[in-house]
Amino acid sequence: MKIAIDAMGGDHAPKEIVLGAMKAIEAYQDIHITLVGDEKQINHYLTNNERIQIIHTEEVILGTDEPVKAVRRKKNASMVLAAQQVADGAADGCISAGNTGALMAAGLFVVGRIDGIERPALSPTLPTIGGEGFLLLDVGANVDAKPEHLLQYAIIGSVYWEKVRGVKNPRIGLLNIGTEEKKGNELAKKAFELISAANLNFVGNVEARDLLDGAADVVVTDGFTGNMVLKTIEGTASSVFKMLKTALTGSLKSKLAAAVLKPDLVQLKNKMDYSEYGGAGLFGLKAPVIKAHGSSDENAVFHAIRQAREMIEKDVSGTIKKTIGESVLSGSSKNDH
Amino acid sequence: MKIAIDAMGGDHAPKEIVLGAMKAIEAYQDIHITLVGDEKQINHYLTNNERIQIIHTEEVILGTDEPVKAVRRKKNASMVLAAQQVADGAADGCISAGNTGALMAAGLFVVGRIDGIERPALSPTLPTIGGEGFLLLDVGANVDAKPEHLLQYAIIGSVYWEKVRGVKNPRIGLLNIGTEEKKGNELAKKAFELISAANLNFVGNVEARDLLDGAADVVVTDGFTGNMVLKTIEGTASSVFKMLKTALTGSLKSKLAAAVLKPDLVQLKNKMDYSEYGGAGLFGLKAPVIKAHGSSDENAVFHAIRQAREMIEKDVSGTIKKTIGESVLSGSSKNDH
Repeated sequence: MKIAIDAMGGDHAPKEIVLGAMKAIEAYQDIHITLVGDEKQINHYLTNNERIQIIHTEEVILGTDEPVKAVRRKKNASMVLAAQQVADGAADGCISAGNTGALMAAGLFVVGRIDGIERPALSPTLPTIGGEGFLLLDVGANVDAKPEHLLQYAIIGSVYWEKVRGVKNPRIGLLNIGTEEKKGNELAKKAFELISAANLNFVGNVEARDLLDGAADVVVTDGFTGNMVLKTIEGTASSVFKMLKTALTGSLKSKLAAAVLKPDLVQLKNKMDYSEYGGAGLFGLKAPVIKAHGSSDENAVFHAIRQAREMIEKDVSGTIKKTIGESVLSGSSKNDH
Repeated sequence: MKIAIDAMGGDHAPKEIVLGAMKAIEAYQDIHITLVGDEKQINHYLTNNERIQIIHTEEVILGTDEPVKAVRRKKNASMVLAAQQVADGAADGCISAGNTGALMAAGLFVVGRIDGIERPALSPTLPTIGGEGFLLLDVGANVDAKPEHLLQYAIIGSVYWEKVRGVKNPRIGLLNIGTEEKKGNELAKKAFELISAANLNFVGNVEARDLLDGAADVVVTDGFTGNMVLKTIEGTASSVFKMLKTALTGSLKSKLAAAVLKPDLVQLKNKMDYSEYGGAGLFGLKAPVIKAHGSSDENAVFHAIRQAREMIEKDVSGTIKKTIGESVLSGSSKNDH
């Protein structure tokens, strides 16, 4: 299989992108990688080009670019060309750590939606205390979602978690302000009815405070709310760690004790780092499109590639297409899929 | 001034409620407290009844009661009678640590809205790294909010922060998925226009990840999103502390080092405890109605009383009434308030 990677996207591009690609090539004998970007810059870090090819381009989409305009106008941008590789059938999936909005636009306009999927969802796997993580969708691809979209997210998420994470009948939860039925805003109430009627392992409403305890494997919500939850988790964890650092360097005594605890604290911080689960999948497209975190290092890029490889191997996009097709035919009711 | 308190609401009622009331009576010579609840149980803890009177009732609203029904049917419940004291002019404000939904219903039906306020907002003050905190409204009184409601929250929050926290021209932020103008869902986009046009110190969109860094003094959002953010902050902080505890008790070596750090860690945990800011105000009602956290201890109850006292003294409800009246007259535009 072949994976196209935007070598110029992200805070540490192209260095960490290239290092991550080489790491993946070493780990997986069955993949070929196409790095899209400035050949000279890429070659500066590329020490092993076995199964790695470069498509040269100097155009780049910046973090500050207006997403839709950028994708339409910068036709030779590294991100757009990586997506084009997928559209042309030259690659089976693509990855970028660049402008999130632009990658969503490139996914929609260049790679294209699966027939029957109304809106793709941006879907990261977030950490849980137990370590198994949970899939949250959507975190911002579609900020004014309808109940039907949330049902589709539930189906998509279920397929992904079962195929890629190997969990049979994943527990699907609806993010809501209380666990009781009939809770929530209009959107949540209607989505509850739709998801209840579908052939899914629906565990009902899930509260935001229980997410990191692993209340469900797959949690669905609209893109506005999901974005808030994602960024609140990031912001709160980072604030607590900042305060912890201040507390542990307050006196010589605490500095000494903190030095003893350093390995434990580093391990704790790593537990909250969700890059090991891969990037945020843009689910509902014809092929895997993965958004790696903007701050991705070699390791995060490696895990995004691992995730894309897994999605391709398990034919996640094909299975979503088949499942959505069946749910449309059956009116999303209790039929097999 | 007189404050009515539901002595039977909350996980640790009536003990901690009574202890908190006695603490407040000692601290503030200008307050009288009416404790509403089971006289015998209250007297078990009441060792000083100076300026404290009891209204006896045996009826109680439970956490599991359906809020609106409970308030309508249990007319002699301690919470309802406390709100009734305010409606009758026998108290200037009331407090409960009981069923949040029921207190919102009691506030609406018994105490009543300020003329011109369309929807009251449930508004806790949450912690920031710097320690000054920020006001988040709404966190669930109104889950299907309209842009006009968010404008009213901005006005209400600004009055509260200026009066009670003493910050001139508080910074008002709109919770959104990005800081740029034109970002967000339909609600956020329209609210942005309305708040921009009002006579407020509007700092624009605020991202969820910057909340604990103190991005604004007052942050407005719809009740569904606010509830998610509130519970995500609580859940993430609690999860990180749980993992920290596990990490620090993993080996004898780490246990010893952790013992040295204990005071620092306790201080850190206290920093994330927002009960010192008081309870969540139900703003937009004719008089202060405060929801203390369900797990409130003596200290949290004390701070809720302190907050109610401050709101009464500074006439927050009266100022909100006046300001909203003026903003209605001026079409919420650039007039003084």
